[in-house]
This record gives sequence, structure tokens and C-alpha cells, in this order.
Amino acid sequence: MSSTKKNTAILLIHCPDQKGIVAAISDFLLKNNGNVIDIEQHVETDINHFFMRVEWDLVGFAIPKDKIEEYFATLIGNKYSMQWQLKFSSKKPKMALFVSKMSHCLYDILQRYMSGEWEVEIPLIIGNHENLKYIADRFEIPFYHFPITKATKPEQEAKEIALLREHEVDFVVLARYMQILSDDFVNAFPNQVINIHHSFLPAFIGAKPYHAAHKRGVKIIGATSHYVTADLDEGPIIVQHTNSVSHKDSIKDLIRKGKNLEKMVLSEAIYLQLQHKVLPHNNRTIVF
Amino acid sequence: MSSTKKNTAILLIHCPDQKGIVAAISDFLLKNNGNVIDIEQHVETDINHFFMRVEWDLVGFAIPKDKIEEYFATLIGNKYSMQWQLKFSSKKPKMALFVSKMSHCLYDILQRYMSGEWEVEIPLIIGNHENLKYIADRFEIPFYHFPITKATKPEQEAKEIALLREHEVDFVVLARYMQILSDDFVNAFPNQVINIHHSFLPAFIGAKPYHAAHKRGVKIIGATSHYVTADLDEGPIIVQHTNSVSHKDSIKDLIRKGKNLEKMVLSEAIYLQLQHKVLPHNNRTIVF
Amino acid sequence: MSSTKKNTAILLIHCPDQKGIVAAISDFLLKNNGNVIDIEQHVETDINHFFMRVEWDLVGFAIPKDKIEEYFATLIGNKYSMQWQLKFSSKKPKMALFVSKMSHCLYDILQRYMSGEWEVEIPLIIGNHENLKYIADRFEIPFYHFPITKATKPEQEAKEIALLREHEVDFVVLARYMQILSDDFVNAFPNQVINIHHSFLPAFIGAKPYHAAHKRGVKIIGATSHYVTADLDEGPIIVQHTNSVSHKDSIKDLIRKGKNLEKMVLSEAIYLQLQHKVLPHNNRTIVF
Amino acid sequence: MSSTKKNTAILLIHCPDQKGIVAAISDFLLKNNGNVIDIEQHVETDINHFFMRVEWDLVGFAIPKDKIEEYFATLIGNKYSMQWQLKFSSKKPKMALFVSKMSHCLYDILQRYMSGEWEVEIPLIIGNHENLKYIADRFEIPFYHFPITKATKPEQEAKEIALLREHEVDFVVLARYMQILSDDFVNAFPNQVINIHHSFLPAFIGAKPYHAAHKRGVKIIGATSHYVTADLDEGPIIVQHTNSVSHKDSIKDLIRKGKNLEKMVLSEAIYLQLQHKVLPHNNRTIVF
Repeated sequence: MSSTKKNTAILLIHCPDQKGIVAAISDFLLKNNGNVIDIEQHVETDINHFFMRVEWDLVGFAIPKDKIEEYFATLIGNKYSMQWQLKFSSKKPKMALFVSKMSHCLYDILQRYMSGEWEVEIPLIIGNHENLKYIADRFEIPFYHFPITKATKPEQEAKEIALLREHEVDFVVLARYMQILSDDFVNAFPNQVINIHHSFLPAFIGAKPYHAAHKRGVKIIGATSHYVTADLDEGPIIVQHTNSVSHKDSIKDLIRKGKNLEKMVLSEAIYLQLQHKVLPHNNRTIVF
Repeated sequence: MSSTKKNTAILLIHCPDQKGIVAAISDFLLKNNGNVIDIEQHVETDINHFFMRVEWDLVGFAIPKDKIEEYFATLIGNKYSMQWQLKFSSKKPKMALFVSKMSHCLYDILQRYMSGEWEVEIPLIIGNHENLKYIADRFEIPFYHFPITKATKPEQEAKEIALLREHEVDFVVLARYMQILSDDFVNAFPNQVINIHHSFLPAFIGAKPYHAAHKRGVKIIGATSHYVTADLDEGPIIVQHTNSVSHKDSIKDLIRKGKNLEKMVLSEAIYLQLQHKVLPHNNRTIVF
Repeated sequence: MSSTKKNTAILLIHCPDQKGIVAAISDFLLKNNGNVIDIEQHVETDINHFFMRVEWDLVGFAIPKDKIEEYFATLIGNKYSMQWQLKFSSKKPKMALFVSKMSHCLYDILQRYMSGEWEVEIPLIIGNHENLKYIADRFEIPFYHFPITKATKPEQEAKEIALLREHEVDFVVLARYMQILSDDFVNAFPNQVINIHHSFLPAFIGAKPYHAAHKRGVKIIGATSHYVTADLDEGPIIVQHTNSVSHKDSIKDLIRKGKNLEKMVLSEAIYLQLQHKVLPHNNRTIVF
Repeated sequence: MSSTKKNTAILLIHCPDQKGIVAAISDFLLKNNGNVIDIEQHVETDINHFFMRVEWDLVGFAIPKDKIEEYFATLIGNKYSMQWQLKFSSKKPKMALFVSKMSHCLYDILQRYMSGEWEVEIPLIIGNHENLKYIADRFEIPFYHFPITKATKPEQEAKEIALLREHEVDFVVLARYMQILSDDFVNAFPNQVINIHHSFLPAFIGAKPYHAAHKRGVKIIGATSHYVTADLDEGPIIVQHTNSVSHKDSIKDLIRKGKNLEKMVLSEAIYLQLQHKVLPHNNRTIVF
């Protein structure tokens, strides 16, 4: 079975909690002959806020694909003061990769891409160094080199943004991209830039977390994938994993062991993003 | 906030998958002024079977509590060929404990019970040995001693069943009860007896799993809580956890480390059972 | 097999790294007919420092038990500028427990104590509240109530120290003791007070870590056992574990799930301490 | 710091447990001016058998490299009826890869190889299918295609063995090689063939473990790396890891999640093998 054959629509919704939302949405789908494949809801009780992800089969659905947005807004969305995103499984998301010098996350992503594990297009890879260009070449993906200095950053980032727009990129993955993005860049792609940080945030924010972990003598290390916001390493967390370490592990060992976590945690976040299963809200995520 | 104040109804449902089930149920609740607190569904696609757990507030609900069963059956359940259980959060489940000689699971359960972590009543503890009677005494829970030999088993089990019926026990927990229940006993409480097996099933079925694990030289050990069926250690699995071990761990170490898993895995299964979150079907469980 | 029958000596050693240390120690034991049961060493290469734990059988050992300290100092220890602790498996360590209102760690410890899982004496339990006195009573362990206010703290702690000295306590366990110890108290028991902190340190130092974890939207929670030093939550870490959580987990759920980690992490630290397997050095621990 | 600059010798030893072994070996090294970098021992008490791994600096060591084997045998090894392997960190091990159609383990291995994470040579990749030849080509590693039928198996395996001998391969890694090796092949490389099995052995031996896991309704999946012996999936286990799954995971999901475990578990076993840290004995491994 290949997921390419799925022809579904996905709604990611949130709004103030009110009686009747589930009934309204399931009734809307039923009346229009939409077969619900998956429906999941969550209420954040402390802020009285409602979240939902619903996926239904488009085969036989009465409302034409390009009218769903309008009909949903009119009949349901506006009534309940909802915010929503509408996605189609038939449209492969476009993902851009940003890299520096380390190859482990890049290879992990490209293997999944090549083997068909993911439904995604990778129109381009951007590096602030040229070290990994040869990998992009091997996989026949266009590689763009944007060296960045403090002076050239605004100009270079503007070019990157233009390039990403031109390729109609849906989201950006920082695959151990060792360069802080400016607020302008981040604001151009709100909750569309996924980073991997090599610690179990909020511990060891900033540079050299493995060195800091070794110095503190922790018995676990971790990795965190999160959406990038203007506050460094403070964005909504998508996935975290940890692993045991001991006094025997040198900083070099922590780095080696940490790479396993980084690969897994980043790829899991990408997978969830591709399935339209992550809904960021304030500084947290609902992961359906 | 105490969960004792919750006044909700819970429906656990399964039936052949059909269009419109979610809409029918959410509409039924909405029309009768029932505020949905939690709704979760799952479709087992390989067998085309639908599962749902829905919990709603009884405050203001139009149908009287003692009529909900009848109304649901008439209006929804029978129409969709559903099987269902209706539960009320206001009714504390009654749980009986079966023990032998080891105290770790028993203490873990009793601590949670005493500290108010769980909403449960424990009307009695049954032991095939008297070793742990002193603990029951300390916690002021009636303890019944039913020594079992091959010859006396049918008779003793019949007495146990009668005692459980008399106390209106909802489910039985085998807290390292080292005695196999007869098919008659198991059939008297279908999917109402929870066991803890000290291995990551299906590995190391039967007696002395830690000895077998040591002999095989595994690098992980585990524990499994499951509903008891007539097939030993083959019932639907509720919770499993594992832990790393090494060549340094003797059998004694495996037993010591395993106890931590056993306590956690059994108590997690009990918690899920108390929340009415486990729906066994065939030889698997849906854990909402 | 019971570990009570072991009659061994244990040396915990550290010193600047030098050639020949392992040979010197193993030769010292061999020449005096000491059968090595376990020997483990570690070199912290960045500070060029050597650590060792060696355990040998006292049966047939040529040097009398009460002379080992002197002989080792003269023949080996002083020569290599070592610091060391000498322990005997035949001497049960004495452990005092400090508690407040939460019972989960206390029960977990007492169950292991009562069932013979650990070789330890618990001469007393100290509470800054009386809430858990009934548990101490049930287990027939003397309970002392020391209510603490800002004004009475120095006086009350002085009494506690005197009481601990009187009972010849080897180490103190803070089993969710919700009161910060003064520097004077900490200095009276250097690396002899073990605390459980309910987060994966260094994340969420200080009060209410589960609330902070929920607010930050982390996908893992953790617990940390560590030696208490004058810097709050900054002492050498002994054991850490983490567990996955999701957006579905309320603060109450985090607290409930966290308790499992706290129990396990604290009891594991106590077990290691009882085996004389932890060697703190600077702000880290070697866990043999 | 690069590990390529290490110039050390490693002895992996096992023999019946006797008094004085540690002293004899550490004395042998000290007398010949060998600085011990790491020494670890283990006694399997139930069979009274001693195991050791010792690594020392060759710089300044009095015995010439090519005489160490002889001297050790004469002075220590034979005296204590030891079996041992002598390894040098300066000699990069040669590893052959066997693959079929799945690329995830292969890419994971090649990324670590290319990035210098491991000290290893990969002289050749062998496939029973040609599907992954393009990857070998990209990484410029010779690829040999040996299609295997029941009839051609003896002949093809004989050619493979000859090829491995010709390249002086130290060990073979089956990176999801979906073909059972004959006893003759296995016996030609005793404890030199590492396999990855996609379950937590001994559960789900044989083909299609994820299908079996799904059918059994387990809540954890796992992966196991082990040395290949004549008994299928029964060889000494090197590394195992597990991961949580739920009723929501289809067989396809289990396969996807399992691949993460397979990559990690296989690469961890290879790393340990490259460090000469694994000592198989009977059907178990000592992992120093």
C-alpha cells in the first residue's frame, strides 16, 4: 500500500472551546458525503481552548476541492471564531534544507526521501558553507551557497527568502545549520522553520550544549526539534528524546551519541509536519 | 482540583466501521445538551472495525442517568450494531487484589490508593499464602487466605468467585499472584482480570522469565500487563515497558531491576482501567 | 543467596593519574591473599585524574580488618597521594529519611527495606510536617517532628544534626522533603545528603518544576537524584531518568507520571549508595 | 582530537577464574613500561569464568609490537589457560557489508564511515540483489552482485567467502540482508558476522516480525544486533533497543518506526566491534 494513493483533506482547527463543535464538523462532513478517516480533538482546559485535526476522504465528497475553504469558512469556521489550515494529501509539501558542515541529519533525511518513506519534495539545499555540496550533488538536489558574515547577513537572508519564495517552499528544516536566523527571516516563515537543538531543552540553551552537559555531569543527554521563533531555542517544541550517558562518556562520546538522537528527533518532527499533525499554539504544540 | 468532583458519563464503543458514526454520536450528545469533554476514535483498517471512547458532562444532560443506556441503545447503538459499555465517573470501581509472597506491587498499589492518586475501592485482598496478610492488616483491608492445591483448586476458586460477587468487584488485579487461574475462573470475569507478567511478552512466556532472560543473554528486560484469558500469557496486552541490562547483571539483579518495571507497568494498567480507557478486542487492546 | 553473607572490603579511591596504580593495588591484594571480586577504574582524561573501586573477599585476607586502613595508607595510599574510603559489606549503613507530606517515595523506600531488597538500617524518620507520621508508626520506625520557620530553622536544624549524630547516621535521604537545608546542615554532611529533584536537571531548577515544564510545553519530563550542596539543585548528579509526555498531559498528569520517575530515581541512587558505588568528585559523580 | 592518533594495544581475555589474574596482567604491563589506558574485568559467577579487556599505550612499551603475542602467551596466557585476542588501534578493521533491497541501514553506516565517525575500511559491498548498487557507486565502494537461488547457494557463497578472504575482511555486517547464510558460511567466520534482526529477540524469531508484533498487539517493538550462528536468530546478542507503539500504529508504521531502531542498534554494535569491546562467550556477550 502506498500513501501516495491517498486522496484526503485535512483540517487543523483551533478556537475558543464551545459546545457543539465536534457535532458541527462531523455533521458538515457527513451531510456532504465525506468519510471521516481520522478525527482527534483536544481541549486545553486551563485556557479553555479547543483543537482538532480531522481527515476525510475526498472521493465522493460533495463540495469541490477548491470550494472547501470557502464553504467551511461560511458554514462553520466563522461561526465558531476558528482559525484553521486546510491541507490536501495529494499535494506533496516542499521542504528546503539548511546545512552547515555536519552531514548526519542531512543523510538521514535524504535516505528517507530517496527510499520513499516520506511524501515530500526537496527543491533545494542551502548551506552557509560549501562542505556538504558534494552530498547534494550526489543526490542531484540543487545546492546554494550563502556565506554569511555579520555585515552580509541581511542581504544574504533576503536572497534566501526570495529563493524560498520562488520555489514555493512550504517549510524549512535547519539540519544542524549553525547560524542564527534574523528576526526578519523568522517572521517571514512563522512556524514554518523547524530546528534541531542538541540538548533536552530548556536545559543547555545556546552554543556547545554537549560541553555544558559534560561539565554539569548529567546522566542523560537529549535532543529537541522545535519551531524557530525570535527567541533563540524558545520556540514550540515538537519532539524530544533522551538517552542515558555515564561518567565514562567524554565530550566526544556525548557528541557521537547525541547525533543518533538528533537524527531521530529531527526526522520524527519532519514526518509529523508532512502528515499535518502538528498545531503550534502560543509556545506549545498539539501533536495529533 | 480533585477528580472526585467530576460528574461525567463515558461510552466505550465498537462496531463495524460505517459512515456517520461520529456525527450520530456527537449529534446525540449535542441535542441532549451534553458537553463533550473528550472524544477519541480509532479505525482498525485491516478488519474495518470502529472504536470510540467519548466522555461528556452529566450536568445539564437532558436524559436522566438511569435512562441513558436505554436511549443510546434505541437511538444509536442498535442502529449501528454497536457493542458498548456505559460508565459513570461518580461510581468508584471496586478492585480486588490477588497476592502470593512478593510485596512490591502490593505496596505500590496501596500507596496510590491511600494517597488518593486513584479513585478506587479495594474491598478485599486474597492470598494463596498468608505472607502478606500483615500488610493488608496495616492498611485495614480485609485479607482472605485461600491455600490452593491441585485437589482443592475448583472448590477454592468457587469460593473466591462467590466472595468477589458478594463484594460486587468490578475487576481483579493479580499483583504477582503466582498461581494459574482455571478457565472457569477466567471465564467468570472476561477481560476483568489484569495480570503482570515479568517479561516483555511474547518473549519468555511461563515460569522464571528472568532466569530465561539471563540464559539467553538479552540486553533488555521488560514487564507486561495484560488481561487474563484461557491461554496463559496470551491475553490482550495493556502496557509494556522495558529497561536496559548488561552482562554485569546477575539473575538477582534482573529480578531487582524487573520489580521496578512490574510496579510501574501494573499500576499504569490499573490507572487506565480506572479511567475506562482500555477496550479489548480480539487479542489486542485499544488504549485511548 | 543473600548478600548479607558477603564479607568483603571495598575501597573507593581517587588520585592524580600515574603509571602503576592498578598494578600496585592488585599486587597489594594478591600478596595478602585477597581475592578480587570486582575492580573498576576510570580516568577523567581532561583533568588527568584516576578513580577506582575495588572489592575483595575478606575471608583469608592476611591483614586484620582493623589494620587495613593503616596498611593501605602506608603502603599505597600516601605514596600515590590518594584519597580513599574503606567500607565493609558486613556493616549495614544507617540511613535517615526526611519527609514532608508526600508519601510515594517514602513507601517505595520502606517496601524495599521491609522486603530485604536492601541491606540498610533506618533508625529514624524526620518530618517538617506530621502528615506521614502514621506511616512511620505502621512500619515501627521512630518519627521525629521538627516544624521549621525562618526564625526556628537554625535551632531546629542543630537539633536534627545532633539527633543524626546520636544515631550514627551514615547518610540522609530527602524523600520529597520540601524544605531547603541551610549551608550549615549541608556542610555537616558533605556528600552524605541525597535529594530527589522532580525535573531533569539542569532544566527547571527550584520550585514547581512540573508547572514550569507544562508551561514550556516539553515532550519529556524527568527526575534527578543528587548530592546536596550549598548551591540549590546544583550538586553532583547520581541518577536521572526521563519519560515521554504529550499535550494531553495536564499539570496533574505530569505530577502523577513524575512520581513514578521520582521513586525509581531516588531508590536507584540509594541502592548505589548502599553498594558504595558512587564517588563524587568536584561537581560530578563516578558511578561504578 | 582524533582517535586515529591513538597507538594502543588491546587484549580481550577470558579464562577460568583464579586468584591473581588482574595482578599478573597489570604487573606484566607495568614492568614493561605500558601505561594502562583502560582496564575492565568481569566474573561470570555462575560458571566461575573470568573476562577482561585491557588497553595500554604502545609508546614506550618495552616489548616490540610483533613480539607481544609471544611474550604474553609465554608469561601469562598459557599459565592461566587463557584464550585471548590481541588488537592494535593503529590497524583499521576491514568490514564487508551485505545488503538486499532496503537502504536505511546502509546509508546510516556509510554516513558514519564518510564523516570519519568510525575508524574502519569498507573494501566491498555484496548484494543478493542489485537494487542498492547505485548507492555503492555514489560512495565509490566496489559492489558485487551474487544472486542466490537454492541451487546456486553453495557455489555463490563459496565465491563470497573467497572474495572476503581476498580482501582480508575482519568482519561482515548484514545490513538487512534478507537471505539466510548457510552453516558453512557461518562457520567460516565464527563470531565475525553481525546481523540486525527487526524484533526484540527472543520474541518474533524468523520472518516478518513486525507483522507478528502487530497481530500480537504488543505495546513495544525492538531491534537486536547479534553474532550469527548456525541457529537462526539465536546467536549472542550485542545490542538491543525498544520503542513504544500503540494500537494506532499499523504494520506500515511499525516498519517505519522499527527502521530507526534497526539503524541505531546495528551501528552501535559496529561501533563496539570496532573498539574491540565485545567478547562473545557461549551464547552471551560481554560488552565492555
